[in-house]
Amino acid sequence: SSSATPITATLFPGDGIGPEIAQSVKQIFNAAEVPIEWEEHYVGDQIDPRTQSFLTWESLESVRRNKVGLKGPMATPIGKGHRSLNLTLRKELNLYANVRPCYSLPGYKTRYDDVNLITIRENTEGEYSGLEHQVVRGVVESLKIITRQASLRVAEYAFHYAKVHGRERVSAIHKANIMQKTDGLFLKCCREVAEKYPEIVYEEVVIDNCCMMLVKNPALFDVLVMPNLYGDIISDLCAGLIGGLGLTPSCNIGEGGIALAEAVHGSAPDIAGKNLANPTALLLSGVTMLRHLELHDKADRIQNAILNTIGEGKYRTADLGGSTTTTDFTKAICDHL
Amino acid sequence: SSSATPITATLFPGDGIGPEIAQSVKQIFNAAEVPIEWEEHYVGDQIDPRTQSFLTWESLESVRRNKVGLKGPMATPIGKGHRSLNLTLRKELNLYANVRPCYSLPGYKTRYDDVNLITIRENTEGEYSGLEHQVVRGVVESLKIITRQASLRVAEYAFHYAKVHGRERVSAIHKANIMQKTDGLFLKCCREVAEKYPEIVYEEVVIDNCCMMLVKNPALFDVLVMPNLYGDIISDLCAGLIGGLGLTPSCNIGEGGIALAEAVHGSAPDIAGKNLANPTALLLSGVTMLRHLELHDKADRIQNAILNTIGEGKYRTADLGGSTTTTDFTKAICDHL
Ligand SMILES: CC(C)[C@H](C(=O)O)[C@@H](O)C(=O)O
Ligand SMILES: CC(C)[C@H](C(=O)O)[C@@H](O)C(=O)O
Repeated sequence: SSSATPITATLFPGDGIGPEIAQSVKQIFNAAEVPIEWEEHYVGDQIDPRTQSFLTWESLESVRRNKVGLKGPMATPIGKGHRSLNLTLRKELNLYANVRPCYSLPGYKTRYDDVNLITIRENTEGEYSGLEHQVVRGVVESLKIITRQASLRVAEYAFHYAKVHGRERVSAIHKANIMQKTDGLFLKCCREVAEKYPEIVYEEVVIDNCCMMLVKNPALFDVLVMPNLYGDIISDLCAGLIGGLGLTPSCNIGEGGIALAEAVHGSAPDIAGKNLANPTALLLSGVTMLRHLELHDKADRIQNAILNTIGEGKYRTADLGGSTTTTDFTKAICDHL
Repeated sequence: SSSATPITATLFPGDGIGPEIAQSVKQIFNAAEVPIEWEEHYVGDQIDPRTQSFLTWESLESVRRNKVGLKGPMATPIGKGHRSLNLTLRKELNLYANVRPCYSLPGYKTRYDDVNLITIRENTEGEYSGLEHQVVRGVVESLKIITRQASLRVAEYAFHYAKVHGRERVSAIHKANIMQKTDGLFLKCCREVAEKYPEIVYEEVVIDNCCMMLVKNPALFDVLVMPNLYGDIISDLCAGLIGGLGLTPSCNIGEGGIALAEAVHGSAPDIAGKNLANPTALLLSGVTMLRHLELHDKADRIQNAILNTIGEGKYRTADLGGSTTTTDFTKAICDHL
């Protein structure tokens, strides 16, 4: 397969530790002979008038053309009126579903050793509508928008994902006892889609109860699908169960078959350039990208090398309590391929 | 103190297991010679035209008059258009702060043994405004309302609570990076109040990050204050860390000095009347009520008896994996007084 025509993928190394961990991905993918050619794009240092943001028009076009990409952390420039670059990407590319697999890493001990779930988050609307205003002095409101179209779309994705990945259950997370209209519509759409997948168990769990169950017994859950903010909250909670955002991959699915994999941790400017960063989240995000491309052999090979390196316990970056450098950790993974 | 004029307090035994666990409270408070006389009120079986709900006018008047009460679980009658009784109580009595102490119970093992925090939840507005509508077919919206008045009020309560209970830190939980106006106003109010309490450390934590930190290391937190829905989610998450809602007390603080302590678990109709219910949450809620009344000796005595009984491990109700009946558990606590 190393002689096949390579696939072109967009790479946003991002800011802070981004370039170092992106370098690690390139090196490991290279060593594993992954047939990918990277098209690298950086965030600009001024607003591109064609995108009205620091994201260049060329970089967005690159993702639209390649339909597949990998993204490191992007720090949003400080100052009034700058929309988060992450949110801009989601909006511009219509990245409607954010998928975060979360599983206990063998050999990396936390309080939990039985986590194996997928959170699927609606990524374009809900509490993230951006619609807010002051009603009178001292009284403000934010609008949460739920649409049938976006709810059906993310529900379809969740059930489809469950089916092709051999998952048994989809839980829709909501607070429809309070937000009867918005979360109610979300649930209605999930139910409609559930009917088309009789082989998948469907259940509905209220978000407060879901969080309690997750910390008591995460093994109760399989695939979770939910509106935007609940997904934001629950995916971070789940990441915490297995060690944090430095270890959890994510992938954004967009209209027209776009997949933009993404490390969702911060850019850690304090340790940038010091060869201390942990590339695991970006690497595992890269693996989800490979699976999206159905390069399962390469995905398995790289994923196993990462998990075995971490599991062995000898090579741990500072965030995991060790003192291995980014380059040594990367080399160790290459040796485990 | 047993000869002092007794204090009159309202008691809502509630539905399902409510009467059994309320009986346990009465028996233990009696054995501890708590100078309280209970005024018992039940939820009606039809709508009281004066309250427009199943809550009787007399019962609300009783809380308003006594300014102190204890409430078991209330099941909201099924059927269209019935507002949750819990929510009705919060609205009618203007119960603006919901306080939930959450601490690891010595001897009752969970994955965490170092939880000791207080969640303080704004209890009247935010995502619970009840304002929702369909914009066009397939597009619905819910309004989240934040007011300066309610935010200042709950922030004041949180800092005051921290001060009188010797707590060192107040964390305001928010998503102001997304909901800049609503959560932004909430934070602004917290900051204003924080300035009046220079001896208390004040910090702001984004809700997703807060949930991750809570499951990784709950000892990082002390007092948490937040808008309504975040409080709903985080208080349940925290309850999960120490064993569940059957073990965590809560107390609602209202305008005019009202304190309505409340067990927030469900009415468990499946085990009602079978002498199987765990009265711990209602008992510990009763203890928060005693502290509100500054009956600290009685509160300490009862709380220690409960914790020692559970800690000993000999008496455990079914929900905690044992087979002790409600009445035997109650007797054991009385013996430990
Ligand atoms: C940075 C922030 C805007 C973002 C979000 O809230 O979605 C982040 O928390 C995430 O989960 O990707
Ligand atoms: C029953 C429900 C309406 C309620 C809430 O959402 O506030 C409950 O979860 C609680 O925390 O008391």
